[in-house]
Amino acid sequence: MRFTRFTNISPLDFRYLDAGIRGHLSEEKFIEYKLMFERSLAHALFRRGLMTEAVYKEIEAACHSVTPDEVYAEEERVGHDIRALVNCIRAKVSDAAKPFVHLTATSQDINDSANALRYVLTSVSIFIPELIELERTLISSAERTASLAQIGRTHGQHAIPTTFGFMIAGYVSRLGECIVRVDACVRELRGKFSGAVGSCNAAALLMKDPKAMEREILKEYDLEPAEHATQITPPEPLMRFFHETMLAVGIMADLADDMRHLARSEIREVREAFGPEQVGSSTMPQKRNPIRFERVKGFWKQVMIRQNLLLMDQLSEHQRDGTNFVSQRTYPEILAYAILATVELKNAMQTARVDQAEFARNLLSGQGSIAAEPLYIILASLGHPDAHEKVRQLTLRAEAEKCELYSVIRTDSDIFLYWGRMTDAQRNIVKNPLFYVGVASSEASAIAKRWRITMDELDAK
Amino acid sequence: MRFTRFTNISPLDFRYLDAGIRGHLSEEKFIEYKLMFERSLAHALFRRGLMTEAVYKEIEAACHSVTPDEVYAEEERVGHDIRALVNCIRAKVSDAAKPFVHLTATSQDINDSANALRYVLTSVSIFIPELIELERTLISSAERTASLAQIGRTHGQHAIPTTFGFMIAGYVSRLGECIVRVDACVRELRGKFSGAVGSCNAAALLMKDPKAMEREILKEYDLEPAEHATQITPPEPLMRFFHETMLAVGIMADLADDMRHLARSEIREVREAFGPEQVGSSTMPQKRNPIRFERVKGFWKQVMIRQNLLLMDQLSEHQRDGTNFVSQRTYPEILAYAILATVELKNAMQTARVDQAEFARNLLSGQGSIAAEPLYIILASLGHPDAHEKVRQLTLRAEAEKCELYSVIRTDSDIFLYWGRMTDAQRNIVKNPLFYVGVASSEASAIAKRWRITMDELDAK
Amino acid sequence: MRFTRFTNISPLDFRYLDAGIRGHLSEEKFIEYKLMFERSLAHALFRRGLMTEAVYKEIEAACHSVTPDEVYAEEERVGHDIRALVNCIRAKVSDAAKPFVHLTATSQDINDSANALRYVLTSVSIFIPELIELERTLISSAERTASLAQIGRTHGQHAIPTTFGFMIAGYVSRLGECIVRVDACVRELRGKFSGAVGSCNAAALLMKDPKAMEREILKEYDLEPAEHATQITPPEPLMRFFHETMLAVGIMADLADDMRHLARSEIREVREAFGPEQVGSSTMPQKRNPIRFERVKGFWKQVMIRQNLLLMDQLSEHQRDGTNFVSQRTYPEILAYAILATVELKNAMQTARVDQAEFARNLLSGQGSIAAEPLYIILASLGHPDAHEKVRQLTLRAEAEKCELYSVIRTDSDIFLYWGRMTDAQRNIVKNPLFYVGVASSEASAIAKRWRITMDELDAK
Amino acid sequence: MRFTRFTNISPLDFRYLDAGIRGHLSEEKFIEYKLMFERSLAHALFRRGLMTEAVYKEIEAACHSVTPDEVYAEEERVGHDIRALVNCIRAKVSDAAKPFVHLTATSQDINDSANALRYVLTSVSIFIPELIELERTLISSAERTASLAQIGRTHGQHAIPTTFGFMIAGYVSRLGECIVRVDACVRELRGKFSGAVGSCNAAALLMKDPKAMEREILKEYDLEPAEHATQITPPEPLMRFFHETMLAVGIMADLADDMRHLARSEIREVREAFGPEQVGSSTMPQKRNPIRFERVKGFWKQVMIRQNLLLMDQLSEHQRDGTNFVSQRTYPEILAYAILATVELKNAMQTARVDQAEFARNLLSGQGSIAAEPLYIILASLGHPDAHEKVRQLTLRAEAEKCELYSVIRTDSDIFLYWGRMTDAQRNIVKNPLFYVGVASSEASAIAKRWRITMDELDAK
Repeated sequence: MRFTRFTNISPLDFRYLDAGIRGHLSEEKFIEYKLMFERSLAHALFRRGLMTEAVYKEIEAACHSVTPDEVYAEEERVGHDIRALVNCIRAKVSDAAKPFVHLTATSQDINDSANALRYVLTSVSIFIPELIELERTLISSAERTASLAQIGRTHGQHAIPTTFGFMIAGYVSRLGECIVRVDACVRELRGKFSGAVGSCNAAALLMKDPKAMEREILKEYDLEPAEHATQITPPEPLMRFFHETMLAVGIMADLADDMRHLARSEIREVREAFGPEQVGSSTMPQKRNPIRFERVKGFWKQVMIRQNLLLMDQLSEHQRDGTNFVSQRTYPEILAYAILATVELKNAMQTARVDQAEFARNLLSGQGSIAAEPLYIILASLGHPDAHEKVRQLTLRAEAEKCELYSVIRTDSDIFLYWGRMTDAQRNIVKNPLFYVGVASSEASAIAKRWRITMDELDAK
Repeated sequence: MRFTRFTNISPLDFRYLDAGIRGHLSEEKFIEYKLMFERSLAHALFRRGLMTEAVYKEIEAACHSVTPDEVYAEEERVGHDIRALVNCIRAKVSDAAKPFVHLTATSQDINDSANALRYVLTSVSIFIPELIELERTLISSAERTASLAQIGRTHGQHAIPTTFGFMIAGYVSRLGECIVRVDACVRELRGKFSGAVGSCNAAALLMKDPKAMEREILKEYDLEPAEHATQITPPEPLMRFFHETMLAVGIMADLADDMRHLARSEIREVREAFGPEQVGSSTMPQKRNPIRFERVKGFWKQVMIRQNLLLMDQLSEHQRDGTNFVSQRTYPEILAYAILATVELKNAMQTARVDQAEFARNLLSGQGSIAAEPLYIILASLGHPDAHEKVRQLTLRAEAEKCELYSVIRTDSDIFLYWGRMTDAQRNIVKNPLFYVGVASSEASAIAKRWRITMDELDAK
Repeated sequence: MRFTRFTNISPLDFRYLDAGIRGHLSEEKFIEYKLMFERSLAHALFRRGLMTEAVYKEIEAACHSVTPDEVYAEEERVGHDIRALVNCIRAKVSDAAKPFVHLTATSQDINDSANALRYVLTSVSIFIPELIELERTLISSAERTASLAQIGRTHGQHAIPTTFGFMIAGYVSRLGECIVRVDACVRELRGKFSGAVGSCNAAALLMKDPKAMEREILKEYDLEPAEHATQITPPEPLMRFFHETMLAVGIMADLADDMRHLARSEIREVREAFGPEQVGSSTMPQKRNPIRFERVKGFWKQVMIRQNLLLMDQLSEHQRDGTNFVSQRTYPEILAYAILATVELKNAMQTARVDQAEFARNLLSGQGSIAAEPLYIILASLGHPDAHEKVRQLTLRAEAEKCELYSVIRTDSDIFLYWGRMTDAQRNIVKNPLFYVGVASSEASAIAKRWRITMDELDAK
Repeated sequence: MRFTRFTNISPLDFRYLDAGIRGHLSEEKFIEYKLMFERSLAHALFRRGLMTEAVYKEIEAACHSVTPDEVYAEEERVGHDIRALVNCIRAKVSDAAKPFVHLTATSQDINDSANALRYVLTSVSIFIPELIELERTLISSAERTASLAQIGRTHGQHAIPTTFGFMIAGYVSRLGECIVRVDACVRELRGKFSGAVGSCNAAALLMKDPKAMEREILKEYDLEPAEHATQITPPEPLMRFFHETMLAVGIMADLADDMRHLARSEIREVREAFGPEQVGSSTMPQKRNPIRFERVKGFWKQVMIRQNLLLMDQLSEHQRDGTNFVSQRTYPEILAYAILATVELKNAMQTARVDQAEFARNLLSGQGSIAAEPLYIILASLGHPDAHEKVRQLTLRAEAEKCELYSVIRTDSDIFLYWGRMTDAQRNIVKNPLFYVGVASSEASAIAKRWRITMDELDAK
C-alpha cells in the first residue's frame, strides 16, 4: 500500500499535524518505549544474576535496533504484537541470549508500562507546558482588563455589569485548578511487571522478591507499580488523568464559546485575529469568522466523546478480557486533541482584539434597565416592603413606553420618597449603572496574582 | 515532517489498514470528490450559457489535475480549505475562466455533497457487500446447525434447550433487517447547491431556476438535494445512516460476545480458528484467545461512542456555526470501523469451529434440572394447582441431595398421580430434556430461507 | 414510607408533571398492561380448549382486579416481579383455574409485549398528536413570515439575507420528516409470546402451532411478533423508535437554541412571551429570560444522554442476561422528556413575539457589508478575473475606514468599469442588500404547503 | 392529580426506594436546604446591622415553616422557583421584615449552595459509610480466601492460577482508593453568595467586605466559597465528585460482572444467595439467577450515562445560560443510583456462597495445560533457546492427542535434557500447577491489611 499524509483517514494524521504530538504519541514512539522496557527488564534480570553481562549487552543492543517495520512483519506471521516484538529482539541475539528476552514478563507488563510512560512524557514535555502558557496568557489578559466594565449576561440577557477581567479571571481560576490536578494525576499513572495474572507467578519461580524487581524496573522511568494488578494495571489512574484532561478542555471550550458569542456581529466586543491574506468564506468576501474558537470547541467534542469509551473499558472480565485492545490503541487521540485545543486557544487568545468602545456601547444599549437590581437593593435596604416588585413594574413601564428606566424612576412618586435617603454613591449607581461592578476589579487582580505564583511554582518543579 | 505509516497516531492509519477503506475514505479521495463537484458545477453553468465551452474545458482539466499537496499549501496561505481548492483550480486556468470557478457556490455546497457521495460510494462498494457476505455466512451456519441442540442460557444460567442454528437465526433476522435499512438510508443521503444560507441567493442573480440547477448537478451522482438547507444540509439523513450502521455493528458485537463466552474454557462449544504459527500469549504458550471476536467488540466501541458526537452536532446555530468542522472530518472513522468489524466477524465466523460433543456435554451437565419447565407445564396443563411451586421444591431437593432431578421426580408421590396421565412424548421430554427444543429447528430454517432470498434481491439491485 | 409528590427524586415525579404522561407511562399503567396480556394469553388458551370458559372468566376477572400494591407486596416475598403478578392473579381464582394462569409464557413475553404496547399507545395518543401540533405551529409561522427578511448568520457573523419564514421552513421540513418516521417506527414495535428461549418450547408441548397463538394474542393489540426472539424481543425496533424520537427532540433543541440567540439583548428579533405576574430573576427585576426555550434544550439533554444506555443495552448475553432490567424500567423517561420538550416548544412558539423592526435594524447594522457576495457574483459573471479577492479588499477598506461598503464601491475605479454593465436589479441589490433573499419566500411557502398536506394525511390515518 | 408511589415514572420513585436516599435527595429536602440558606443569609445581614434582631427572628421562623406545597403554588403564579420561595417567606413576615428576605442574593446563591450541601450531607451520612461497609466486606473476603487457589482467566481462557483472595484484593485496592478520593472530592464542593454575576455587586452596595459575608454564611455548613463564581459556581468540583463516584460504581460493576460469570452454570465457583421463597423465573422453576449482581451493573449504567450530561453542562454561556436547569434537577439521580449499587453489592457479597470444590474442579479441567507458562519459564531460565515455541508445540500436541500436557512433557526427549536440572520445587509446579500462585496469598493479605487501617482512619475522621 502507498502511504502519504493524504492516504490517511484520521484528521490527526492528515490535517492536525504537530511535530511534538507525533514525536510523542505515534506508533513508532510507542514501539520504542516498549523496547525500552524490554531492555530494562533484561537489565533487572542481569542484576539478579540470571544472565551474564555479555548476554545483557546483546539484548540491549537489539532493543535499540528493532524497527516498527520488523515488528509488524513478524506480527503478520505470529498474530501477536508483543510476541512479535520479542521475536524481533531474539532474532538479533545469540542462542545464549534468546531465552532471556522478555523472561518473566507478560505482554501487558510491557504495554501498560509503556503506555503510562508515554502519557507521562507527553504531559510533562508538551501538554502541561502548553497548559501553563495558556494559563499565563489568560492571567495577563485578566490583569490588563481587570477594570474594563462589561455587561454581565445571563440567559443571553443583559444582567448587571461586571468586568471583562473578572470574567477571564474565572477561567484563570478554573483552568489553574485543572493544571495543578493534571500534573498530580500524571504522577499517579502506574506501570506493572507482575506477570500474566498479577501475582508474579513466573518471576517467583526464579527469584525471592519479584515485587522488588517490579519496583526497580519502573523506577528507572520514575514510575511506580500499581498496588495490585491483574494481567493489567487498574484503569482508574488513567481514567482520572483523562477526566481531568477533559475538564481542562471543557473549560477551554466554555471560554471559546463565550468568545465566539462576544464576536457576534451584534455584540462585537471581541474579534479573532484575521490575517491579511485570510479568507473567511469561499463566497462571502466580507466574512471574518471566529474559526479558531470554533475549532477549540470541535477539539473538545473529540476529547469528551471518548469518556464513554473509558467508562466502558473500566470493566474487564476476570484477569482481563481483550475487548479493550482496540480502545487502548486509540487513547492517545484524547491527549492529541487536548493538546491541539490548548495550543489553538492560546494562539487565539494571544491575538484576539478586545474593543473597548463596543463594551461601552453594549452597556448603554438597554436604556438603563440594568439599574434595576441596585435600585431594588437600595430601596429594600431602606425598608421598602416590596421593592423587587416595585422595580419590576417600573421596568415594565419603561419597556412599554420605550424610554430610559432612569426617567421612569425620577418621575415615580413612590421612589421619590426614598431617593433623598440614598447615599450619593447609591444614587450615582442608579444613574450610571456601568459603575456597578462590585468587587470585580480587585478580585480579578487578586485571582490573577495567585495563579501567577502557582504557575511559577509548577514550572519550577 | 517525515510521514510513514508509523508516524501516525490513529490505529486506522498505522494498524487497521485496508486498501478498500483507504481508497474510499482517505483525505486524498475526499479532495478528489470535491473537485468532481466543482467540475459539475462549472458544467451546469456552461449549460446555462454562463461560460463558453472552451472555458468549461479549461476548468474541467484543472479539476482533474489539482493535488492534495497543492490544496494544503494554498490553505496555509488563505486559511480556508475550499477557497484554497478554488484558488488551485483558478491557478490552472486562464483569466477568462477564472471568474467562473465555484461561481454561485458556497463551501458547504461542495463539502456536503462530496461527503454524501463518499458515504454512498463506500457503502455501495464495500460496506453493504461485506454486510451481505457476513449475512450469508450466518445464514449458512443457521442452516447447517438448525437442529444442533444447545442449552439456552439466561442470566448465565442454564435455562431450557434450543438449537445453535436457532440462536444464529436470531442474528440473521436482526442483521438482515439492518442491511435492508442501511441500504435504504444510504439512498436518503442528500447533497446541496443552494448557496451560503440555502436560499440560492447567488444563483438567483444569474438564472431563473436555481433549484433546477441544484438537482441537475446532484443527479450526475445519483444524489438528490435536501428539501431545505441552510448553509448546510440537514444532519438527520446522515444521522439515520450512521445509527443504522451502529445497530448493525451492535448486532455483530452481541454475536461476538456470545461466541467469546461459548469459547470459554469451561464451555468450549465454539473455538475461534487458530493458525499453526499463531501465538496466543507472549508468556503462556497454551493460550488460544478469541481475539477476533474481541476485536469485533473493540471496533463496535469505536463506532458507538461517536453517537454522542452526532447527537451534539445535530445542533448548529442559525444558518450554521463552525463548531462541527472538526467533527465532520472524523465521521469517516465511523464507517471505517464499521467495515472493519464486518470483515473481522465474517472471517471469524467462517473459520470458527463448533464442537458438537461439547454441546451435549453442557446440555447434560445440570443433572437434568432443565426438565423443570416442561414438567411444570405438563403438570399445570393436567390441572395441578401449584405446579410451578411444586417443581421448584423438587429442584431444591435435587440440588440439596446432589442428585438428578429425574430421580427426585420419579420418587415423588404427588407427581406420581400425574405421571400416568402424561403422553409418551411428554414423559420422554421430562426424561430427556435435550429434545425439548420447541420449534427451534423449523424456525431456524425458515428464517434462513427468507433472508437468503432477501439478500439475493438486494444483490440484484 | 410516606409518599408525596415532594418525597420523589426524579423531576419527572415532582416537577414536570403531566396528566397524560403519567396516565400512560406510570408503573401503575404498566402493571395494567401486563395484566391485559395475562388475560389475553388465558383467552388464547381457552380458545384452544386448554381451559373451560368458566375458568377463563375467573382469570379475566382476576386480571381486572389485581392492584400494584398487591403485586409489589407479593414481590417482596418471592423476589420476582412477574411471578408476583401471576401469584396475585392465582390468589383470586379457584384451584381449577390456578394452573392456567400464565401457562406457556415466560416473564418477558408479558414484559416485552406490555412495553411495546405502552410505547405505541403513548405515541399514538400523546406524542404524535403533540408533534403534529408543533409542526402545524411551525407551518403557520413559516407561512406568516415567508417574506420577512432576516440576516442569515453563519459562525455568528452576518452572512447574507434570507427570510425568517425560510429559516422556520427548514425546521418544518426536518421535523415533518421525523414525525412521519416516528409514526412508522411505532408501527414496527414488536411483542412476543415464544417462551423462555424464544423457540416456543412450552407452548409446543400443548399445541400444534404455537406461533399462531403468539400472533393471535398480539393481534388483539394491533401488534405483531418479532420474526425471531430469544427470551427477549430484538432490541432494534425500540432503538429505532427512540433514535427517531431523539432526532425530533434534537431538531427542537436546535430551533430553541436559535430562538434563544435571537432573543439576546443585542439581537432582540424574537422575544419569549412573558406573563404580567412573571418574574425573571429573584434579584434583577428587569430580567425577561427565554426559559421555555432553555427548558427545551434541557429536556433534549435528558433524552439524548440515554442513547448510550440503548446502545449498551443492545448487547445481551446468550438468550438474555439481566443487566438490562434496570435500564428497561427507565426507558419511559425518554418518551416522557420527549413529550415535555414537544409541548414546551409548541407553547413557546405559539406565544413568542417576532419584532419586525429589529429584523430591519440588524440587517442594516453592518454598514452594507452583506452586499459583498452579490457584488462578487455579479462582477465575476461579468468576467472580473479576481472578483472575490477584489471585494474582500473593498470590505477590508470599508472596515478600516469605518464607512459603508457601498460608498467604497462607488468610488473604486476598478468597480466603476463593471457598474454600468450591471442590470438595474443587480445594482439595486448591491445598494439594498436586504432584498437579496433568493428564493427564500417562495420556498418557505412551498415547504409549508407540502407539510400541511402531509400532516393532514397523518392525522387522517 | 392523584399521587401514589405507582403514579410515578422513574423507578427511583416507584421501585428502588430507600428511606435514607429519599430523606436526603428528595425535592422536599432540597427546599428545606434552600430555606436554611435564606435564614443564614438573613442572620449574616442581621450581624452586619442591616436588620434588627426582631426582624431576623421573624424571618428565621418563616424559613422553618414554608412548605413545598406553598412554594410550588407560588411558582405557578410567578414562574420562578426561588422568587416563589422568597415570596413564601415574605408572606409570613411583617412589612418591616419583608425587604430583608433574600437581600443581596441571587437565586443561584441559594441553589448552588443548597446543592453542595445536599451532596455533602448525603455522602457523609450514607454514601461514604456504605462504601466503607462494602470495602470492609471485600477486605474480609480477601483475608478469608487469600490462599484459595483459582484459575486466572484472560480472554475467557484459562491462564495460570492465582487465588480468589488476590482477585478480591484487587477490588479492595481499587475501591479503597476511590473511597479516599470520594471523601476528598466531597470536601471540595463549593457554595457561593456572590450575587447575580459573581462580583458581589448587590452586597457591595451595603457593606464593605461582601466576600467575608459569603465565607461566614457557608462556614455555618462547613462549606467554602468557590475562588471565583459567575452567577454559578464553577462546575468542576461537582464533576470531579461525580466522576469519582462513577469510578467507584464502575469498580462495583466490574466485580459484579466477574461474580456473574463465576456463577455461570458451567463455572459455579460462586453462587448468589437464594431465599427459600425466592423464584428465579416465572416459568423455569429451577432457575437461580444472579439478579443482585446483574442489578449492580444495571445501576452502574444509570450512573455512567450521566457523565455526558455533566460534560455538556460544563459549558454555560457568559455568566450562565439556563440550558442546565433541567439537568441540575436530575443530578441527585446519580448519587441515588450510586448508593443503590453500593448497598446491593454489599448485600450480595455478604451472602454469596463460594464453593471450594468447584475451584478445584475448574483448575484441574484443562488437562494440565496451565503448566505451560512455568515450564517455559523454567526451560528458558535453564538456557533453552526456544522454550516458548517448544512448549507451544507441546500444548498443540497434547490438544491434538487429547491428553494431559504432563504426559506429553514426560515423553519429550528435548525436555528430558532439562528435567534433571530443575529444582524439586520447579518440577512440582509443572506436575501440580495449582500450586503455581506466585505471591498471590501474601499480597492479598497485605493489601487487605493496609486498607483495613485506612478505612478505620476514614471512619475516625
